[in-house]
Amino acid sequence: MGRWEPGARERLVMAAVDLFTEQGYDATTVTQIAERAGVTKSTFFRHFPDKRELLVAGQETLCRLLTEGIAEAPAGASPLEAVAAGLQRASTAMGPMSREIAPRLKAAVAASTELQERDALKSVSLAAAMTAALIARGVPDPTAALASELGVLAFKRGFIEWSDGDRDDEFAAYLLKALDELRAASTSLG
Amino acid sequence: MGRWEPGARERLVMAAVDLFTEQGYDATTVTQIAERAGVTKSTFFRHFPDKRELLVAGQETLCRLLTEGIAEAPAGASPLEAVAAGLQRASTAMGPMSREIAPRLKAAVAASTELQERDALKSVSLAAAMTAALIARGVPDPTAALASELGVLAFKRGFIEWSDGDRDDEFAAYLLKALDELRAASTSLG
Repeated sequence: MGRWEPGARERLVMAAVDLFTEQGYDATTVTQIAERAGVTKSTFFRHFPDKRELLVAGQETLCRLLTEGIAEAPAGASPLEAVAAGLQRASTAMGPMSREIAPRLKAAVAASTELQERDALKSVSLAAAMTAALIARGVPDPTAALASELGVLAFKRGFIEWSDGDRDDEFAAYLLKALDELRAASTSLG
Repeated sequence: MGRWEPGARERLVMAAVDLFTEQGYDATTVTQIAERAGVTKSTFFRHFPDKRELLVAGQETLCRLLTEGIAEAPAGASPLEAVAAGLQRASTAMGPMSREIAPRLKAAVAASTELQERDALKSVSLAAAMTAALIARGVPDPTAALASELGVLAFKRGFIEWSDGDRDDEFAAYLLKALDELRAASTSLG
């Protein structure tokens, strides 16, 4: 098996994240991103309408997969079983590229309040979308809100474990392990 | 008892929130905020170093009170009892001004992605600070993270109930009720 080779879209995302880290989000232009990725500006615009979309594109896919997984979980699934189905579906969007980019993205976010704010709104939006999907399944409101927070926490914690690890394990296994740990913790809140 | 009368600081916050709603955060200047509040620019700067601080000042107080309440909860308190102590302490910072400003702040946030991002980062920061305070009490990590999320959810849900209501009930009662509902929900996650 050869090493994984990123395509133009992946190279653009990685170049952007590196430039955001080096010089900040505001100071980074589409021209610079395209240059660093070794593609033309028109290639950039074939993949993304602008700099901001480059960051949120993955977010929308993630949100869609999470809510689809919840909606299509078996009728008898408990709230957390439905969340687990959402996480499993979402994990299909996270490949070698996500893993390779994780440490750079972490550095870029740590260096920028603007990206921290954007990242925080992502979490809030994911939780809101999951809550709506659970309520649509008939889960009552406070339980739906809480199950969604467990889902978001599991995603964050599983992602950190997965991207810090050095084995090419499936991301889904990390997510489900993190969710299980949170389920266990929910019985010791007192 | 007379109607509650806001002081200069309160008038500045309310003027700012109204202007953010009307014309956006970026377009609003310190001069406009001072004018709307009926005070001089130097009065503004006696209260706040800049426009941004005006929004985050309350946040820092809230964070400090929450974590102090958690730190000073009795030694035998469970994770959620410590969170409840934090919420009770935090409620002391929320008076008639917070209640009066709530619908305007909600409108301002709804109208601005920038304020939504800032607001989301507030929630994430509060959760992180509460998690650290719980870990310092010896609560193990996944439980501390989860208890903090319940605390943040209780704060948000309690605040909405309190500010939507038309009675001058104590805010603390709303917070503890919201936390109780979430504790109950945590047993039906499946």
